[in-house]
Parts: sequence; structure tokens; C-alpha cells
Amino acid sequence: MKMKTAPMGWNSWDCYGAAVTEDIVRRNAEFMAEHLKEYGWEYIVVDIQWYEPYAATNEYHPFADVVMDEYGRLLPAVNRFPSAANGAGFGPLAEYVHSLGLKFGIHIMRGIPRQAVHQNTKIMNSDRHAREIAKTNSICAWNTDMYGVDPEKDGAREYYNSIFELYASWGVDFIKCDDIARELPHEESELIMLSKALHGCGRPMVLSLSPGPALLEKAELYKQISNMWRITDDFWDKWELLYDMFSRAEKWCTHAGAGHWPDADMLPVGPIRQVYDVNNWTNFTQDEQITMLTLWSIMRSPLMLGGELTGFDEFTMNLVTNSEILAMHANARHSHQVWRREIDGIEHALWIAADTKGGYYVAVFNLGDKDSDISIPLADLEIYDGVNGTELWSGEHVEEQKSLSVSLKSHGARAYHFTYN
Amino acid sequence: MKMKTAPMGWNSWDCYGAAVTEDIVRRNAEFMAEHLKEYGWEYIVVDIQWYEPYAATNEYHPFADVVMDEYGRLLPAVNRFPSAANGAGFGPLAEYVHSLGLKFGIHIMRGIPRQAVHQNTKIMNSDRHAREIAKTNSICAWNTDMYGVDPEKDGAREYYNSIFELYASWGVDFIKCDDIARELPHEESELIMLSKALHGCGRPMVLSLSPGPALLEKAELYKQISNMWRITDDFWDKWELLYDMFSRAEKWCTHAGAGHWPDADMLPVGPIRQVYDVNNWTNFTQDEQITMLTLWSIMRSPLMLGGELTGFDEFTMNLVTNSEILAMHANARHSHQVWRREIDGIEHALWIAADTKGGYYVAVFNLGDKDSDISIPLADLEIYDGVNGTELWSGEHVEEQKSLSVSLKSHGARAYHFTYN
Amino acid sequence: MKMKTAPMGWNSWDCYGAAVTEDIVRRNAEFMAEHLKEYGWEYIVVDIQWYEPYAATNEYHPFADVVMDEYGRLLPAVNRFPSAANGAGFGPLAEYVHSLGLKFGIHIMRGIPRQAVHQNTKIMNSDRHAREIAKTNSICAWNTDMYGVDPEKDGAREYYNSIFELYASWGVDFIKCDDIARELPHEESELIMLSKALHGCGRPMVLSLSPGPALLEKAELYKQISNMWRITDDFWDKWELLYDMFSRAEKWCTHAGAGHWPDADMLPVGPIRQVYDVNNWTNFTQDEQITMLTLWSIMRSPLMLGGELTGFDEFTMNLVTNSEILAMHANARHSHQVWRREIDGIEHALWIAADTKGGYYVAVFNLGDKDSDISIPLADLEIYDGVNGTELWSGEHVEEQKSLSVSLKSHGARAYHFTYN
Amino acid sequence: MKMKTAPMGWNSWDCYGAAVTEDIVRRNAEFMAEHLKEYGWEYIVVDIQWYEPYAATNEYHPFADVVMDEYGRLLPAVNRFPSAANGAGFGPLAEYVHSLGLKFGIHIMRGIPRQAVHQNTKIMNSDRHAREIAKTNSICAWNTDMYGVDPEKDGAREYYNSIFELYASWGVDFIKCDDIARELPHEESELIMLSKALHGCGRPMVLSLSPGPALLEKAELYKQISNMWRITDDFWDKWELLYDMFSRAEKWCTHAGAGHWPDADMLPVGPIRQVYDVNNWTNFTQDEQITMLTLWSIMRSPLMLGGELTGFDEFTMNLVTNSEILAMHANARHSHQVWRREIDGIEHALWIAADTKGGYYVAVFNLGDKDSDISIPLADLEIYDGVNGTELWSGEHVEEQKSLSVSLKSHGARAYHFTYN
Repeated sequence: MKMKTAPMGWNSWDCYGAAVTEDIVRRNAEFMAEHLKEYGWEYIVVDIQWYEPYAATNEYHPFADVVMDEYGRLLPAVNRFPSAANGAGFGPLAEYVHSLGLKFGIHIMRGIPRQAVHQNTKIMNSDRHAREIAKTNSICAWNTDMYGVDPEKDGAREYYNSIFELYASWGVDFIKCDDIARELPHEESELIMLSKALHGCGRPMVLSLSPGPALLEKAELYKQISNMWRITDDFWDKWELLYDMFSRAEKWCTHAGAGHWPDADMLPVGPIRQVYDVNNWTNFTQDEQITMLTLWSIMRSPLMLGGELTGFDEFTMNLVTNSEILAMHANARHSHQVWRREIDGIEHALWIAADTKGGYYVAVFNLGDKDSDISIPLADLEIYDGVNGTELWSGEHVEEQKSLSVSLKSHGARAYHFTYN
Repeated sequence: MKMKTAPMGWNSWDCYGAAVTEDIVRRNAEFMAEHLKEYGWEYIVVDIQWYEPYAATNEYHPFADVVMDEYGRLLPAVNRFPSAANGAGFGPLAEYVHSLGLKFGIHIMRGIPRQAVHQNTKIMNSDRHAREIAKTNSICAWNTDMYGVDPEKDGAREYYNSIFELYASWGVDFIKCDDIARELPHEESELIMLSKALHGCGRPMVLSLSPGPALLEKAELYKQISNMWRITDDFWDKWELLYDMFSRAEKWCTHAGAGHWPDADMLPVGPIRQVYDVNNWTNFTQDEQITMLTLWSIMRSPLMLGGELTGFDEFTMNLVTNSEILAMHANARHSHQVWRREIDGIEHALWIAADTKGGYYVAVFNLGDKDSDISIPLADLEIYDGVNGTELWSGEHVEEQKSLSVSLKSHGARAYHFTYN
Repeated sequence: MKMKTAPMGWNSWDCYGAAVTEDIVRRNAEFMAEHLKEYGWEYIVVDIQWYEPYAATNEYHPFADVVMDEYGRLLPAVNRFPSAANGAGFGPLAEYVHSLGLKFGIHIMRGIPRQAVHQNTKIMNSDRHAREIAKTNSICAWNTDMYGVDPEKDGAREYYNSIFELYASWGVDFIKCDDIARELPHEESELIMLSKALHGCGRPMVLSLSPGPALLEKAELYKQISNMWRITDDFWDKWELLYDMFSRAEKWCTHAGAGHWPDADMLPVGPIRQVYDVNNWTNFTQDEQITMLTLWSIMRSPLMLGGELTGFDEFTMNLVTNSEILAMHANARHSHQVWRREIDGIEHALWIAADTKGGYYVAVFNLGDKDSDISIPLADLEIYDGVNGTELWSGEHVEEQKSLSVSLKSHGARAYHFTYN
Repeated sequence: MKMKTAPMGWNSWDCYGAAVTEDIVRRNAEFMAEHLKEYGWEYIVVDIQWYEPYAATNEYHPFADVVMDEYGRLLPAVNRFPSAANGAGFGPLAEYVHSLGLKFGIHIMRGIPRQAVHQNTKIMNSDRHAREIAKTNSICAWNTDMYGVDPEKDGAREYYNSIFELYASWGVDFIKCDDIARELPHEESELIMLSKALHGCGRPMVLSLSPGPALLEKAELYKQISNMWRITDDFWDKWELLYDMFSRAEKWCTHAGAGHWPDADMLPVGPIRQVYDVNNWTNFTQDEQITMLTLWSIMRSPLMLGGELTGFDEFTMNLVTNSEILAMHANARHSHQVWRREIDGIEHALWIAADTKGGYYVAVFNLGDKDSDISIPLADLEIYDGVNGTELWSGEHVEEQKSLSVSLKSHGARAYHFTYN
């Protein structure tokens, strides 16, 4: 798939961990259709362990029994996803999401269920069995559900084909594949096999790779076989993680383009971690959230909302429905950091991108612990004829000849759209 | 156990791989009792996968079904070990070996069977189950039988106690524990727990740790909790491996002592790899075998015969029943390499050890590809009063004042026992 | 200095090594003024060892006597630069270069002459002496002229001020400082001190740092204290070095901007290494030279001609006076590699940059050993409305809707300037 | 030289740094001859910078002028060593030391004086000059006196021959060569050249290599070309350094033998660092000094006294004249650590060595911060017939059957000499 803009959507992980249910998915899909779809948000993604009947938090049950068919293909737990009864899988839920004008995605883990291997299930369209294709020393470091699949073995290709055939039959539009992005080079051939199976299944699907950090030296591979890949380990609502993203973004930014985007991970905004406490709310300040949306947008990271949509407050809704910011996310080109340095003892970062019509975007970030008033020479941006445009979060008109005066909150950001004079 | 001399015995691996059977064990035990026991050979060790009914070669069947009891404790496959029928385990076979005046050992793998985890068997003398103690991301890199056990978990100690209680009930005298010696520091606490369980089981057992290379910086730990530990990966009948052992031996030699020995691995002599071809014979030349026995003996490595004993030829019998060499193995003290250098363009190594009565042992090795005649100044050995003694392989009397003249075959060795003048 | 475009000029090293003389400099300056100045070429740089009377090749004479003043400041060797007689230094030569409408640069080495240290010369405007400021264990790995200067010592600042005061008095416009760019972090404080002295001397000078490879993690430092810094070790006329530059360029490209440019080193074109043989000519093929100029220009590396200008043939003159390519060098913005991958088994690279007026530059490189005919989907460039423009080396008009067809020689390149439709 | 016992003597460094004078040397030599010679102490060594007229402390004067002859060979500064007047060098002082029945040694630095290089002095017995043999990028990291010599250059061999010829003419018996032991592998060929020149000069000299840590993987090289080599960086009177020596000693101990000894460095006992303050005294406690002498002696390190001998108090005199301890130093064979472990929460180390007559030495160390009473099973020492002997520091008779009871002070030691029963 070669989409023009990075995927935007909702993912169940930040709020529901391994315990998401059909009700939750439907509720968030409905909210998105009604309130967010018009701004470009479209993917509804069911994250990890939908095949585990008793998942209850962000934790995994070691060696839990999983639901699967006779070919070792995982199926939704019917107690959590009632519409999956009678072997329907995610078909009915996907159909419902599609009926709302949205797209449907699921999380998978690299490999074949250990349970299939221990039961030695048949591989569909093959005379091989699960034990014959499992890669004996390839396991996930943090989850016990799967064994890796050995691409050298007869039956391996048929197994991967069989699962994507199933997902295609359900109407899946988006695959978030886990335990794979940072498992290079040792599992590179399994990743390539998986990508081929997905792209050959007859239904277009976005391929999203987790977890990070992906390897910078493999950038060309990710670009050619997937649509997005995580550039950090799990991102949560802590300033240290947001601060660290600037270093990652600087290195990865030139690899964003049509159909391939470095992924800075989900946006933990609004109500999150509800599976632990229904009163939980993001720890990010409003300024930090503005910084996050600004950085994610100018670098063109995929945007996946992590909070329960129906609980979004006015700030959060404004944050994710700022049309100018989302236009930057869609239209920025050649984005890159201009510099990152201390000004008056406070660390700042400056980013620039072209737009598609001869204008450009500029973002300024205060990464320090104090507010700042700084003046950025336009020559730093190689602009010699003055600027004329808008600050995108405030809507203020900006027109300057020699330098850009910026007032920033600690951990805050400003984003500008300028046209050439 | 604090034995005075390093264990000497026979192990089924080099000849029978994973496919050893009761007949083979009995036959070799009988031969040992009749022909070798008088020289100090005493352990009969059943190596890996005695619990797997269909093991046939040195290869392991991935995810094979294994024989175990209701507590997840592995049992001998009755089709291979008929006397184990009716839950007798290795009891009858151990009893037979004991009746011959020998000792009985078995191989185990660190951890708990994956099959027990997937069946979630009970832990004996505990209200915990297998899934609760398995360490989710701890597997053997080359065998799929087990999961590691997490020492932090309730039930872990009881599990390890339960298996050694079983082995003690069978009459086991020697445990070769695999997937553990080089798995430090990450599995160190499991190793310590295992050692405690073994030493607390009520029956003295030798604890032998595999595979190597063990970590030199952990020498004190090995010495305190085990009796022998492998200093290389699997040793086979290739000169390169024998050559490499000199570098290992040099570093490890000072760690040999009562009850704790760096282990240079089995001696692949006589008929080996018979499971593949009944005509297979060691690839080592006779000189190389003399070099091997000399090095193993002066450094006091355990001596475990790898070949089918009943097929030993006269050379091999002489090799392993040289009383003088075996006396060096028993009585060498403070063994160490004196130097390793080229003489006339041919690499040689010189070793020395004290004996327990004021004499000393000297070994000279030709590590090059040509025969050599060299003269070793006795000053190199810090001997200033001349030497008087015997070359142990030839029985020749040696008496010299200033230097030791040695004729060596390529890859060959000489060993001397001298008394102070 | 914050110039808008990366420096363009001539440097004596590639053709004359350490042996350049005043005649050579004047001849090349005159040629540049007459034939190249109108295209933007303006710097005339005297490279290493102008202070060594007997330098004869690219080699350095170990511990050679050097010409210096009473304050340990190096002076041109009068036998090689006659106009430097009577203490005039490079003043008369700089004046002549300025009279031609060009700018004048010199090479220096980090530190203070060892000869000054051994003579313990006074530091100008200080009561300290050379031995007191020399950093005792800081020497250049490949040249014996200097000791590093210890910024912690009294007199160190005065020494660096004194040399830049001298260079300013001569009328120097460009300093190529050697033994410094890759000597981080250990000599970072000396680099910062040197940069401050240069910027405080009262005359604007370009600061160019050698040798490479510079450290990517120090990009911000280079950008803030210098104008250009070498991203590789010495670049010469070998395909392997040109091929390797693509990997360097990909990583460094986002750090090019007004006043600061990653430096891919001199262009070894036309007659080079004449100091060894007056018939020497660049080993690069014409296609390789086109590739080089294309990459250097789209990434905006400084352009310093290495060959004897008066010997340039027609191809070389056309190569360095292609106005459209030089416009790309001046006006490219946000340059970056789009991808680098095999097409039909031949490695290619694709680069893009914006121009300053809403158009963009595209460069395509064949890095393989065979010619190729490829078709690049415009979607790879995120262009959805077709392209309209010119191929810059051939001048051909190009207009395409969906993909760009490119015929490339092995090691060759094409460069395009498009405007948005 | 293949001496039977490791060198014992006095070295000026610990007390006088770079500032030693002839008076000091004579005074200490006289004291040694009268009070220590009978115990085996015999070398008097003049440490670093005897060629620098103004050396005053342990610090070096950067780029100081040095005294040398027309061939760039360093000479004693006559203001410090008056008997060196009229080109006599160390001849008269060596003669005096010899007249006392002692041996005379000097410190040298690897290489050729920088001053010789800058003056481009002639190489004796060669038509080459200093600049031609200096290795341009080989300097000492902590002293500016010398350049390395490039063994590939004509004249290099002649230079090294010329300095040892000079030392031989003076009557030097011991060379402590600095800036060399840890400079491998990069300066290995210079070390080999130096060793050959020393061994070919016609006078036997001990070759001692500094500074440490030497490289364990080069043990064979040190053994073959030198007599002693430092196993740590400079050793001073701090417990942390003494504690650290146990880890070094454990690894190096098997490399001690006739003519080659791992060197644990000088013994900072009694009055030291007098160059700074005439009241300075070693910071080591008496127990720590006993531990030091015990470890150095059982491992057979060279013993070089660092304190001003004439100021030794009764404890210090007893410490260095304990005949039994010095007999262990002379006669220990095959020394090695038996174990190092916590007993009752206090770290202890146990060492053993054979003697030359069928007995053995045992040393026990308390490395913890509390006193201890421990019982060591004789089986740990592989002694099964009881022990019978003497504790060497107290002279107490010891006779035990099963275990050795030892009372130890914190940081203290006991040393035993046992004969086999």
C-alpha cells in the first residue's frame, strides 16, 4: 500500500492493554465516525491478546490457553468479542467498522502459537505440521504466546499465507505486527516472508511493525516491506520519553515518505490506562501534548490515539482536530531538524519542512524547564525575504523581516505555516 | 561432595548421542567393571534425552513428546529402558550398576519440561503449578524440551527439590546438568537454587555443569557449587579443538582442586558416533590421543570415556589403563604451563606439577606439524640438581643434569615423573 | 560568517601536495578570475606546509625546520613565496588575489610549532612561553610540526589570538584548520578556543575543519563554531571513495544550511598530483565526475577544485561551469536521499531537494557496474500532479505524469529541476 | 639473565621522585650493604630523570632541557650527580656501589630524546641522524622527554646498541625501562629491538619493564625478552591498590619462574615521598604491610624497597629481614590462589605454593574490614595427612590434623611453611 499520508486512528492499547472488548471497540468506532472522521481519523485497531479469554490488564498470562482453529490460527475470544461466535472471527466487527466509514485493524505477534506447536496442528494447504515450522530457539522476550517460524522450512510460507488469508476474509485493513521491528537481523527473513504473505493475500492492508527501537541501518528494508515501524520502545505519558523522541526523530526524519513512515508510537492523550483505574488521565501537560502533536505532525509520524475517545475533553478534542496541524501532517515534505541548542541556557529545537505548494512549515520547541522568549534569525532557516503566515495553535498572523520572535512555555511548542514572499 | 580425584567414567554421548538404550549402558558397565574398574574408572553416565521415546541420533526432535510423571518430572522412556517400567525409573538400572561396584549418573537439562508447563502440572509438595514457576523467556538455544525455572517464584524450590528427591530415590550418583554452565550471569540464581536442591537431597551426587565455555570470571562460583564445569563447547576428535584446549587449560589450571575441576570434556577415543555408522572410529591419531590423555591428566580434568568400551582395541586399552598417567591424574598438584613457544619454528608447550611426595611431573607437547628433537634447560623448570625418573608412556628411565632431551612426534607428547635428587 | 552558499574555490593540495609555490597560486588565481569567477568560484587556498622551505611532494619531512617569527608564529618560506620577504608574510599574495576580485585562504595545523616549544619562544601579548602552553601528549598522528595547545593554560588564548591577528593583518579570508575535525572529544576545548580566536580577530574568515571523518554526534558543535567540516578522510579519484560518500551524505545532509556545510572534500578533477608527474590526470571517468558534481551540489557540500586550473580541458570546464548545477548547489534546500536500493539488480540512489521558489531538484544515481534504464514512480517522490522541467547535464526538457524514465551509465547520474504543475 | 630468585633492592622513586641525587643513592647503598645485604637485598636503582638538572619533585618539567652527549645519549646531570663530571657518567657511582658488594641500576625511557631529534644529532656508529629514526607519532602520554624509535629505520638498531654500550661501560647491572610494558602491541617491535640490544651489549643486565598493567595475552613475550614486568599501574600505600593486587596476582602467578617475574611494583614502606615532606611515612598499617610482603613473596614478585632506608624503624626492618618470608620468596614454586571467598561475611584469600624440598607454603589473607577467626579445612589444600610447621611472621609452631585455625586482623595475613608428614 502506498498511502499519501501517514495512518491516523485509534488503538486500544494505551487505555485497555490486553483486555479490550468488542463493546469498547464499537463505542470508540462510533465516536470516531461521528466526531473525528471528518478530520482524517479512520483506523480502529484492536491491540494484543484478543485471542486470550482471560486477559484483564496490560500484563500477559504466561503460557495462557489461547483460542485457535484447527490450523493453529488464532481466533477472537468469544467471551470478549461475542460477534466472533460460530467461527465468524473478526468478520462481523470489521463489517460494522466499515459500515461507519472507517477501517479495521488488528494486532498480531510474529510466529505461530506455542499451543499449536504443542498440539502439532496441521498447516493449512500443506502436509506439514506446526512442530515442523516452529523456529526452536525463537521466542518473544516478553510474551509466551508464540514461537517464531523458520522461513527455511516447508510449510512456513503456507502458514503465513493461511493467516493473512483469514484476516483478509474478515476484512482487516491494518496489521500491527509485534515482536518483529527490533528483532533484526536475526529474524529478518521471517519479517520478509510475513510481508510477502500480507502483500499477496489479495486485500490491501497497512503493515505496522513493533516494537521499537527499529534499527536505523535497516531503514531501507523497513521502507520497502512495511508502511510504518516503531522508532522507540513503548511510548507513554512521561516527559523523558517525549524529550528522547527528538533525538530519534532527527535521525529518522528523512525516511518518511509516501507509504513509509517512522512511527513515534501512540498518542497517550485523554483517558488512558482505564483498565487499572477509570479515573486515569494522561500525565502530559497541555504544553507537552502540543509539543507531541507538533513533532509527530511535522515529522509525519502515524497518529494513533491511545485514549478512550468518548471521554475526550474539549482540550483534547481541539488538540486532535486542529485542521492546520493535520494539514502539516499531510503535506509536510523533507522535514528535518535545523538545529538543537541552548538559547539563554534553555534547550530549544527548530524544525522545518516544505509544503507542497512552495510554502513551508516551521516548528519551534522549548525542551527546557523554564519558559522562554527567543528570537530566531530567519537566516537560520535560509529565509532572506521575510515570512508571512500563521501560528497554527493560536491562529495568530505572523509577518517578520529578519527574525522570528517566539514565546514558549517550558516543554511547549509553536508551529508556523509560511508562504514565500 | 569433596572427592580427592577428578571423576573417571564413561558417558554415552560420544558414541550414542540422544539414542542410548539400557542394553548399551549395561554392556558398557559390565565391561568397565571387568576391565577398567581396577584402574579407577567408576562412573557410568546416561546422557541426554533418556525421556524421549524416539530419539535416534545426536539430533533432537523439536517439541518432541517426553515421558514424565504427574508432577512434571521426567522419566526414562520404557521402550528404551525396559527396567523403568511400572514407574521404577532408573532405579533398577542404577541398582545393577551399583551391583558391579560402579556408580551411576544421568544427564539433565536446566528447567522444567515445556510439556509440563503446557499441561500445567502440579508441583510436588506445593500448591503451585508448572506455569507459575516457568521463566517465560528462558529457553535453551539448541533444545526445545525445557523452560527455565524462575527462582523468584513460589514453587520453584519445591520443583527442584522434587526432581533431586526422585533421582536420589533411584540411586543416582552423578548429575550432568546441561544448558547451564555458560548461561551466566543471567541464569546464575537458577544454578545456585539447583545446586542447593542437589546438595540437600540426602544422597551425595557429583554435580557436573555443561556446556562450556564456562566463564573464567565465575571460577569461584563454579568451585563452590559444583564439582566440574566445562571449559569449552563440545569437544570432538579434531586437532583444532585439542590445540585450542591448551589455551583454555592454561587459564583454568589453577582452579583444579579437591572436589572441583575444570572439565575439558569427554575423551572421544575408540569407536564413537556409532549411532551414525557402526564403523566409525576416532579421527585422532595415536599421538594426538597421547597428547590428550597427558594434558587432561596433568591438568586434572575429569576423564570420561566417550567410545563404546567393548570395542576398544589394544592401543586404546593401553591408553586408558596406563597406571603412571592415572597416578599423575590423581596426584598432580599446582599444575600449570611453564611456557608455550616456538623452538626451531615448531610450537611447543611445557607443563609442570608437583606430586604429593616432593617429586614432580613434567609434560612436553609438540603442537606443530613436524616432529621435533628439542632440549629443555632444566633451569626453565627451576631444577638445578638434575632429574631422575621415568617417561610415563614409554617407561624409559631418564636421568639428566642440565637439560632434558625430548623427541616428539608432531601433535605428540611426553610425560615425566621425577623425584628430587 | 553566515554565507548563503557553500564556499567554492581552488585548493593546492590535490595537485601540489605540500610543495605549492607562489607562482602556482598566482597562475591559478588568474585563471579563476578570468574563467571561473563569473560562475561563483572565488576562494584560492594555499594548503599545508607553506612554512617548510624544502617540502617537495605530498609527504612531510619529519621534524623539519620551519619558518616562524619570534612569537612562534609560522611564516611562509620565502624561497617558495618570494613576496613574503622582509616579514611581509602572505600579505602581498593576498593583496594580489584580492585585486583579482577573489578571496585568499591558507591551511593551518591545530597547535603551536614544536620548534617554538623547543626554543621556548615568547607568547605575544603574554608573559608566558611556548613550553607552558603546549599540551604535552597532544600530537598529530601524521605530521610532526606541532604540539596541541592546552586551553587550560595561561597564555593559550593569547597564542591563538596572536596567530589570527597575524592572518587578519595579511588579509586572509579562509582558514582550513587541520588535525582537528575528528580529534573530538579529546581536543574539543582547543577547537572551541581556536574558533573564538578566529571569530574575534576582526576580519571575517571562513573556518574549514579537517580531516574527516567528523563525528555525527558532534554535528551541532561543528555547525555552531565552524563553516564546514570534512565528513570523510581524504577523498581521491577512486570509485570506492565516491561510492562510500553516498552513505556519509545520507547521514549528514540535514546538517547543511546557511553558514554551515558538511564537506565532502576537494574535487580531484583535471590535472592532479602533478608534483609527482606532470602527466597525471584524474582517474575518475566522466560519468563518475558527473556523479560527483551532482552529489556534492544537491547535498550542498563546499566545492573546492583540486586540479591545476590552467590545464582543464573542455569536459572539465563544462563540468564546473554548468550554471544549472551550480544553481542547484546554491538553492537546494532540505536535501535528502529518498531511497537507495537495487533495481534490476543494480544499485541506485534517489535524492530530492526543494528549491527556494516552490520547485524541486531530483538526482538519480547508478551506483552499479552496468548501465541501466529505470522508471521511477513519481509517487516515490510524493509527486502526484506530474513533473515539468529540465535534466541539468543534458539540458533536455522532461515532462511526465506518472513516472520518470531514466537512462544511466554505470557510475553515472542525472539531475533534474522541476517546477510544480 | 636467568637468575634463580626475583630481584631484591632499593629504588629511589617512592621517596625521591624525579629528584634523586648522588648523596641519597650513596647513603642508601651504604645502609643496604651494612644492614640488608646479608638478607639478599642487592640492587640500588636510580629512577627517572637523572638527566634533568632541575627536577625537584615527582612531577616532570614539560619539554625540559636534558643533558646528553653528541650522539643523543642521556647523561647524568652533574649538579645532581657530581661524580658524573667530565663525561664519567654513572661510572664512578656504579663503581662505588659495586665496592659495597651491591649492584647498580638505572631507569630509562623508551626512545630517543626529543632534544636529540630537534638538534638532529648523529647516531653513533651510523651515518644516520636522530630525525631519521624517530617514530613520528610515538610519544609517552605522561612525559615529554622522548620520541619512540622506529625499528624499521636504518640507524635504529645502532642507536639502541649505542646506549646499552654506554650503560655497560658505566657498569650498569639493572635497567628499568619505562613507557614500554603496556605499550603493546603498537610498540612491540621497539621493545624487541631494545631487548636484543641490551642482551647483546656484553654485560649482563636485568631488564625490568614499566609501567603496568602489562597485557596478560603477551605473557610469553615478556617472559622471553625481559626479567620482570609491571602488572599494575604505579602502586602506592593505599589499601585499594593492595586489594586490587590480589586479582592481578591470581592471573599472573603461573608466569613466575627462573629469570622472569610478574612485578607487583615497589614496596612503599617506611619514609616515603620525602621530596614533598620529610615527615611523610607510609600510610599502610602494619597489618597491610605484612599482607603486602606475604603476597609479594609467595607470588615471587621482585622486591624493591621504596622508602629511605636510613629512616627505617624497627618494625620496617623486621618486615624486610624476616628470613623465613624471604626464603618463601626464594623457594616458592607453582604458587597460586586456592580460593577467594567470603567466610562469615568477610572476604578471605588462600594461597599455596610448593617449596623445593617436598614441603609447601600456605598464605591466608583477610581482605575485609573486620578481624576474623576462621578454620580452613586441610582438604581445601588437598592435604589429608595433617600439617606440621611454622607461622612465619610469629614463629609459632603449628600442627593440625583436619583444619587450620587462623586468627587474622582486618587487612592482615598469615604465612605458613609446612613439611609433609
